[in-house]
Amino acid sequence: MFKVKIIAIGRCKELWLNAALAEYEKRLRGRCSISWQFVEENESFTASCRKEPILVALDIQGERFNSEAWAEKFMRLGKRASFAVGGPSGLPAEVLQMAHFRWSLSPLTFTNQLARLILVEQIYRTLEISKGSPYHK
Amino acid sequence: MFKVKIIAIGRCKELWLNAALAEYEKRLRGRCSISWQFVEENESFTASCRKEPILVALDIQGERFNSEAWAEKFMRLGKRASFAVGGPSGLPAEVLQMAHFRWSLSPLTFTNQLARLILVEQIYRTLEISKGSPYHK
Repeated sequence: MFKVKIIAIGRCKELWLNAALAEYEKRLRGRCSISWQFVEENESFTASCRKEPILVALDIQGERFNSEAWAEKFMRLGKRASFAVGGPSGLPAEVLQMAHFRWSLSPLTFTNQLARLILVEQIYRTLEISKGSPYHK
Repeated sequence: MFKVKIIAIGRCKELWLNAALAEYEKRLRGRCSISWQFVEENESFTASCRKEPILVALDIQGERFNSEAWAEKFMRLGKRASFAVGGPSGLPAEVLQMAHFRWSLSPLTFTNQLARLILVEQIYRTLEISKGSPYHK
């Protein structure tokens, strides 16, 4: 069972986003739990990230992968990984420095709300790739 | 006023997706209309795409841009542009060939449902970039 923690600045505001996340979390049930930690400002964000043994920072300047390469990368992180998703101004410099690596979802800028959904969809996709399901083709 | 047409294989199935698209279409009101054309199979998809004077094909093998470069590219398309979004097996080869250009949202694979939301969010972002709003920073 994978345990993923997502640390984010600000709550998931949009109703549609919460519905979409709930759908993916339901599909992940029994294979991967996702816990959310919402913080309100950079200082508590940095303090929370510091406690995480394996931290991936979502950052547009980070490395990019296709979904297959990302799935391999994810699997090598072990059973517990944490992801940091910044607010509209991105991640604090300290979080970028302490991260295991920085991951860029795309050269396009997304809202941090949409980035959360893309992240969770890719985690679901990773587990489908690893079991060879037709979800990913 | 921009007029964007999105030609897609299969309807927007997810309730959360329809809610999210409605939110962005509301924000675009008066500046850009988005019309959807849903087709069920490759033959009618190709026929529909053939009628479009300016067609952009969403394709993971296409060109990638950051949001600023994409905004410039979009503005150069003129006031009317059409976008082709494939189904789970991607776009028919004919559509890829007839497209003005192929655009890759990311090296990651997304569901075609999620790709629709990312597309509409980037269109909204483009118009915000062009008016210098703080939505894009």
